[in-house]
Amino acid sequence: MGFNRKDLLAIRDLEVAEIEFILDSSQSFKEINARSIKKVPTLRGKTIIHLFYEPSTRTRTSFDIAAKRLSADTYSLTSSTSSMVKGETALDTLKNLEAMKPDVFVIRHSASGAPQMLAGRTTASVINAGDGMHEHPSQALLDMLTILDNKKRLDGLNVVIVGDVFHSRVARSNIWGLTKMGSKVVVCGPATLIPPDIESMGAEVSNRPEHCIPDADVIMVLRLQKERQQQMLLPSLREYSAWYCINADRLRKARKDVLIMHPGPMNRGVEISPEVADGPYSVILDQVSNGVAVRMALLFLLAQR
Amino acid sequence: MGFNRKDLLAIRDLEVAEIEFILDSSQSFKEINARSIKKVPTLRGKTIIHLFYEPSTRTRTSFDIAAKRLSADTYSLTSSTSSMVKGETALDTLKNLEAMKPDVFVIRHSASGAPQMLAGRTTASVINAGDGMHEHPSQALLDMLTILDNKKRLDGLNVVIVGDVFHSRVARSNIWGLTKMGSKVVVCGPATLIPPDIESMGAEVSNRPEHCIPDADVIMVLRLQKERQQQMLLPSLREYSAWYCINADRLRKARKDVLIMHPGPMNRGVEISPEVADGPYSVILDQVSNGVAVRMALLFLLAQR
Amino acid sequence: MGFNRKDLLAIRDLEVAEIEFILDSSQSFKEINARSIKKVPTLRGKTIIHLFYEPSTRTRTSFDIAAKRLSADTYSLTSSTSSMVKGETALDTLKNLEAMKPDVFVIRHSASGAPQMLAGRTTASVINAGDGMHEHPSQALLDMLTILDNKKRLDGLNVVIVGDVFHSRVARSNIWGLTKMGSKVVVCGPATLIPPDIESMGAEVSNRPEHCIPDADVIMVLRLQKERQQQMLLPSLREYSAWYCINADRLRKARKDVLIMHPGPMNRGVEISPEVADGPYSVILDQVSNGVAVRMALLFLLAQR
Repeated sequence: MGFNRKDLLAIRDLEVAEIEFILDSSQSFKEINARSIKKVPTLRGKTIIHLFYEPSTRTRTSFDIAAKRLSADTYSLTSSTSSMVKGETALDTLKNLEAMKPDVFVIRHSASGAPQMLAGRTTASVINAGDGMHEHPSQALLDMLTILDNKKRLDGLNVVIVGDVFHSRVARSNIWGLTKMGSKVVVCGPATLIPPDIESMGAEVSNRPEHCIPDADVIMVLRLQKERQQQMLLPSLREYSAWYCINADRLRKARKDVLIMHPGPMNRGVEISPEVADGPYSVILDQVSNGVAVRMALLFLLAQR
Repeated sequence: MGFNRKDLLAIRDLEVAEIEFILDSSQSFKEINARSIKKVPTLRGKTIIHLFYEPSTRTRTSFDIAAKRLSADTYSLTSSTSSMVKGETALDTLKNLEAMKPDVFVIRHSASGAPQMLAGRTTASVINAGDGMHEHPSQALLDMLTILDNKKRLDGLNVVIVGDVFHSRVARSNIWGLTKMGSKVVVCGPATLIPPDIESMGAEVSNRPEHCIPDADVIMVLRLQKERQQQMLLPSLREYSAWYCINADRLRKARKDVLIMHPGPMNRGVEISPEVADGPYSVILDQVSNGVAVRMALLFLLAQR
Repeated sequence: MGFNRKDLLAIRDLEVAEIEFILDSSQSFKEINARSIKKVPTLRGKTIIHLFYEPSTRTRTSFDIAAKRLSADTYSLTSSTSSMVKGETALDTLKNLEAMKPDVFVIRHSASGAPQMLAGRTTASVINAGDGMHEHPSQALLDMLTILDNKKRLDGLNVVIVGDVFHSRVARSNIWGLTKMGSKVVVCGPATLIPPDIESMGAEVSNRPEHCIPDADVIMVLRLQKERQQQMLLPSLREYSAWYCINADRLRKARKDVLIMHPGPMNRGVEISPEVADGPYSVILDQVSNGVAVRMALLFLLAQR
């Protein structure tokens, strides 16, 4: 069926066949990143605008590298450098930039649903690069690509997502995606960091890593968003770590082919220990490499419409 | 006669024939922005440096898009990211960058006359992208192009500029340009926001929108620069809005082919109402599109010298 | 012998023949910067990442121009815009970016030794763009190229470095480089700004400019790093200036072919007077022009490995 949408807003919206098509397309872009001359003229003369209302290194750089390796021209507007300063609404900013004839907007916003709203008001394509606590679809796609590379399938797996599920758009996009593809997802964390509606999304809930780890094919460790822990959801980082940090000791009962994933940036020693982050099960840096390939595929599929 | 200057500093300096030549040139660049592959090799190997001492989204992005669609390489130095931090003078920054052999500097500065001073000290071309309360020539050119597109002429028109004329370099550049081209300009705003010398520039003055609107071919609404209203020039935003906001009610007596323009970013509900900003007379987004074409023309004319 | 290293970290590490090879290579890149079309396809498809943990205009822009004139794609991560914000270690940031397959990292860091540590952990090339009070090798190379242009040799010269030697990585890289090449280096400044170990690096020490200036072939004036003078190393700027400012009066006894150099940005009237900075002996802007050529050579030599 291919992928014929104007926008990529949420994994929840996608058909299984669309996810498969994006992942297939990504495979062919991986090879470009391994070349000595990492550049193809595919999107020459196309204009990609990064509109980031939240700070980001890795996601923005990943999209930027993806775009330039396809020969597109890119522009970054971030909340610190832009005249968002001057109090213009996000919609007016979008409409103004749209008048400059971009092909794709890559949008990150702290408000859940902002990219969706904006996508409905522009003829350009919109990629949601993370909106509030809602979705981060390109992250889930690169996570699925990484699992697929290692497990050769996305169905019938047991995926455990550990940590601050409440604030995590990465967790939500992965739950939608992995359950669609036929895997089981268990979310594991302190009750205050597990959202009440998560089972309605298709995930199972656990509060004890000890119970989930032995059966896990994949353990996705979430970043503890320390900057969002003002609301007293945790007694302390130390206590969180004592119960939930994925360390060598906790992995002793894990399968020998378990995959350890993390969307980054990591708080080493908080949600993941250094020996696990850098250990033999870790595919964390493969996730990053796959991120460029997935984003090349997404930009290609949307900008070539 | 063409356009044979090293710099574009002020509309006041230009001959009528030069303005006509720039506007003619801009027409041919419009078409590139409508293509699927929006890129030509015209300025390949040319170096454009954006030197912005004041924050800006739209102007800097517009110049940047214009430059890259001509295949130039661009560099942005802004007051927040640059070592203007380290207390170097603007002239030393310019001379240092000049030693790296750029072709064009695009300069915005809060001090009126700064781009002129700098232009006199470099062999590179300088485009004034807005200096203090002095001029913003590329904005006036894109405004004139937008009027010309719609009215098919720039002479004999009645143009009303409404709002904070005092702080507006956009107003000043348009007054110089439109009166040169043979139109009448009326500035309209509270007496505290009308500079005393404005009549010597060729504009008429009114304090009542009701008096100006019925005869207007074009209404340019200025941004109320809220950040510059510390000096008690206005009793309150609410009062300003009650008297001067361009809304549907005030437009009831306007001509049926009036054009509504705004240089952006808009304060919706302050100087312009949403139904007017987004209404049938509005050419505000056409101004933005024309901005890219005008800046392509300017960069082409200067960098090809 | 050529230059076959993965990284450029410190002048101290280099053989004389390597320095000569880099300077020779730089000569051939100078010519590109003098063309009307300042661009060659040499590094097309290569990815250069600027990772700047300290603010910088000139060095970052110089590397960026160098890279783009070779047709490489560049990405800038600076401490203000990046998610260094989110508390990730520099090593994790590097490893993540490495997973995106860059060819060269250009790194500036306030910690002496940081680029060395990072270089040992990545297969990509690393250029040290300034680390703490340690080294700034590309600056010393461009300084040597500028001296060579004017003096036709780097041996047997008498080079005086005046000012805040203590905080200066530029001074340290030049001492290593110029003494290797066979010149004599005298550092001159108040005792509190001369590091105790500087003689072990091969430099002579003086506290009186009057004693050093008459014999100098080259006077390198250092920036007084006002932002680092909290520790009461100086009685006052005025007093510093009275004793050490390189002005016309102090140069009266200098050789008629003395070269005046400064790495920038200058504090005019503090460590150097305007009439000297802009005077006939000054090659300060030639240093900047040579900086682009040297960095083109370095990027070429490293990215082509």
